[in-house]
Amino acid sequence: MEPQPLSCSIQVSRIMRPDDANIAGNVHGGTILKMIEEAGVIISTRHCNSQQLESCAAVLARVERTDFLSPMSIGEVAHVSAEITYTSKHSVEVQVNVLAEDIIKGKKRLTNRATLWYVPVSLKSVDKVVEVPPIKYLRTEQEEEGRKRYDAQKLERMENKQKNGDWMLPAIDTDRKSKEPYTVRYSQSSLIHLVSPSDCVLHGFVQGGVTMKLMDEVAGIVAARHCKTNIVTASVDAINFHHKIQKGCVLTVSGRMTFTSNKSMEIEVFVDIDPVLENSKGKTVAVTAFFTYVSLDKHAKPLSVPMLKIETEDEKKRFEEGESRYQQTKAKRLAQAQQQ
Amino acid sequence: MEPQPLSCSIQVSRIMRPDDANIAGNVHGGTILKMIEEAGVIISTRHCNSQQLESCAAVLARVERTDFLSPMSIGEVAHVSAEITYTSKHSVEVQVNVLAEDIIKGKKRLTNRATLWYVPVSLKSVDKVVEVPPIKYLRTEQEEEGRKRYDAQKLERMENKQKNGDWMLPAIDTDRKSKEPYTVRYSQSSLIHLVSPSDCVLHGFVQGGVTMKLMDEVAGIVAARHCKTNIVTASVDAINFHHKIQKGCVLTVSGRMTFTSNKSMEIEVFVDIDPVLENSKGKTVAVTAFFTYVSLDKHAKPLSVPMLKIETEDEKKRFEEGESRYQQTKAKRLAQAQQQ
Amino acid sequence: MEPQPLSCSIQVSRIMRPDDANIAGNVHGGTILKMIEEAGVIISTRHCNSQQLESCAAVLARVERTDFLSPMSIGEVAHVSAEITYTSKHSVEVQVNVLAEDIIKGKKRLTNRATLWYVPVSLKSVDKVVEVPPIKYLRTEQEEEGRKRYDAQKLERMENKQKNGDWMLPAIDTDRKSKEPYTVRYSQSSLIHLVSPSDCVLHGFVQGGVTMKLMDEVAGIVAARHCKTNIVTASVDAINFHHKIQKGCVLTVSGRMTFTSNKSMEIEVFVDIDPVLENSKGKTVAVTAFFTYVSLDKHAKPLSVPMLKIETEDEKKRFEEGESRYQQTKAKRLAQAQQQ
Repeated sequence: MEPQPLSCSIQVSRIMRPDDANIAGNVHGGTILKMIEEAGVIISTRHCNSQQLESCAAVLARVERTDFLSPMSIGEVAHVSAEITYTSKHSVEVQVNVLAEDIIKGKKRLTNRATLWYVPVSLKSVDKVVEVPPIKYLRTEQEEEGRKRYDAQKLERMENKQKNGDWMLPAIDTDRKSKEPYTVRYSQSSLIHLVSPSDCVLHGFVQGGVTMKLMDEVAGIVAARHCKTNIVTASVDAINFHHKIQKGCVLTVSGRMTFTSNKSMEIEVFVDIDPVLENSKGKTVAVTAFFTYVSLDKHAKPLSVPMLKIETEDEKKRFEEGESRYQQTKAKRLAQAQQQ
Repeated sequence: MEPQPLSCSIQVSRIMRPDDANIAGNVHGGTILKMIEEAGVIISTRHCNSQQLESCAAVLARVERTDFLSPMSIGEVAHVSAEITYTSKHSVEVQVNVLAEDIIKGKKRLTNRATLWYVPVSLKSVDKVVEVPPIKYLRTEQEEEGRKRYDAQKLERMENKQKNGDWMLPAIDTDRKSKEPYTVRYSQSSLIHLVSPSDCVLHGFVQGGVTMKLMDEVAGIVAARHCKTNIVTASVDAINFHHKIQKGCVLTVSGRMTFTSNKSMEIEVFVDIDPVLENSKGKTVAVTAFFTYVSLDKHAKPLSVPMLKIETEDEKKRFEEGESRYQQTKAKRLAQAQQQ
Repeated sequence: MEPQPLSCSIQVSRIMRPDDANIAGNVHGGTILKMIEEAGVIISTRHCNSQQLESCAAVLARVERTDFLSPMSIGEVAHVSAEITYTSKHSVEVQVNVLAEDIIKGKKRLTNRATLWYVPVSLKSVDKVVEVPPIKYLRTEQEEEGRKRYDAQKLERMENKQKNGDWMLPAIDTDRKSKEPYTVRYSQSSLIHLVSPSDCVLHGFVQGGVTMKLMDEVAGIVAARHCKTNIVTASVDAINFHHKIQKGCVLTVSGRMTFTSNKSMEIEVFVDIDPVLENSKGKTVAVTAFFTYVSLDKHAKPLSVPMLKIETEDEKKRFEEGESRYQQTKAKRLAQAQQQ
């Protein structure tokens, strides 16, 4: 196959509408995640079909940790631009930048940077992964750097897959009357979503962005129940998509708080697939992720978060794990800041 | 006030899209209920402002039992026509007919008949109910018949309100792995919905149709989990709306199966309001209803429904109550058939 | 074939929601265009199947110039009524009126009048155009007047098609930091849309209204970037649909400003089809159109529009062409006003 020039880029722009935002007017993180993934799926599907005899669709395999640098508002235009930055034999790395533009004031600012990994699946035979045409790199180091990122994510994916076998959907009890505020049981939430045709456009599977939007929705409700203030998504840890989710499935998306620091909350979110119409035994955990939320006052200044009340040994263990993730991220940021 | 002529009618039409339907292509009952309520809120708000000095918006108070006579398909046009048929001092009765039109084959058929009751609420002071301008009746019997319907629904509403005090949101445990198929616990389901601006257009409250669509969605998932077949809404029992639902609330909509006959299932649905941002004590049950579903094969012929497995005394009691509702409806239909 | 009575009419009504409008609360022109086309496709598909043995679906071929007489607001009810006014052997002319009703104040006003041309395409063989059953005219002049409109639009369509061959998607450089305000390059914008099943209901092609809504969205962003004020659609020039757009395509919709007068802006919009999943060579320009926008202050009074800064010879040529269209429209309106 002939290498492709690295020119392939795409831009998705849209005005943020009232339904994209919470009552305080801040756009949901999930809205942005969905747009990011839409740009990613278009550019990677286009690339994978560029030299292919076999038609294929790109399926989201992994999203790297994503920070939300600043909340967007209703009426602003979100510009999501995506570019292919690395290809292995069977996967495509897409890097995405999100800018918020206040078209009235004429100002733009960077709100997100994200990295997504796609795998091209044959349209004829769903379980067949096709080959990815290589891209041309402008500098030779680019390929080498890409390969390092590829190896790192592959390792993490595999570790995660092993761990994932042990994960179980938490039992969410919807009756909250009898529960004490600030406990895990008080704010835990769960929703079901019947997969609709619009959720699966390019192939018979749910687009990754749809799932991420639902996950953010649940995480946001957990955070709001805990804080009772205006809350916004601050970051999402790396998400691995282990199972394709087909049309006609029912998704159960559940969230529970794992950790609170002074200014942030960590919420663990689970997605289970229930192929309602088949006589299968129960559900499969398809995706899990950690969302971090912050609480804001009217002037978008951070508010302190009420301390999570721990009731069980399991909750204590999860709190400590969350704390360790929090410390790691903090250290990484500090190191990055010093480098610059 | 001068009486108004009975001319006031409205028609809402729309092509049914893939997202309005299940995988088998049958339009969700909830889509139809939402369109019915949109026609109702337009015509009653228009009427209540026709002679009024005080601006007001009509709020849905009750929907009478509604039958779905035949399922609609993607690509068909739904024609919803509404007409005001009775007014009391503080309420408006709207009758609605729904026709499905196959514009390719050129055929129309009646799919629903519904009756809704609205109460006009002042736009200035949310707790103030304003007076309804009287309508002109073509025949004197019409007013008398309307008054009878008004008295009957008022009585039922009050009985229901008393009973409602005792109702509690069922505790829905999302972990279904450990549960036996065909039990109540196996198919019970729950979703949360963050109220969006598009849910509340004419006033600061959720439009009744939005709530009914969510209720039907949950009922449909309960039915599909029980049957694992193509299921469609057959009827909805009278629904009373006891509490207005404000912007920024989180709705929890839960459903559990109460009764199965040979060819139908009855699902009880609860809607709880959680005013997340306020420091209130728990939730309020805002709406409850019984949905009846049937299971269809590929040729839209009814399939037999697996018998519900009863595990507790409460479930047994609810099953018997469901059976008695089922027998009453059957007897009523037989009586109507003989009258004609 | 037996002529049909001219009774065939339809009304599509809906409450305008927050997502239908911009931040100032004015309903997007694109929302109205989409509703207009929905009414048009229903009535023309219904008519073309009324005496046909061969099932067909009406595909939008052309929309005549449309004026937006007054902006609509959230909470108002849009009533779109359509009627077939002329049929040729292979096309149907539909005339549409749009009324805005303030159901609180009880007032209605005309906001749009539009004329659409549809061509019936066989559902079995997509490239086959079927015959249209003739309609009955109430007055004999109606047929003659219709024929004149038919000939006029046919001529324009053909001229436009020739010109269209030369059209090229403008290269939209989305980086606007280095560009000077009020230039064409500063406000030019582009969005991509992945065609979803709900965009194509009656046949495997995107409904014309979906495309028009996207075009208006881009034009609106271009106008807002230029003016940085509340802008609303004032009119849309005739639009010809030269290519059918299939499921699974990616649409790129691009807009650039061509002309400004003291109180209005003209924006040229291009729609390109990219059949992502197929190995085709590049894109096809499917639709082009000119949108005119005006800028409004808080009291909906027109504001003056900043003069467009011309940088290249091409831009100069397009500005002059825009000015000539502007003068022609002005002259036509004056002539109409004098006639009345």
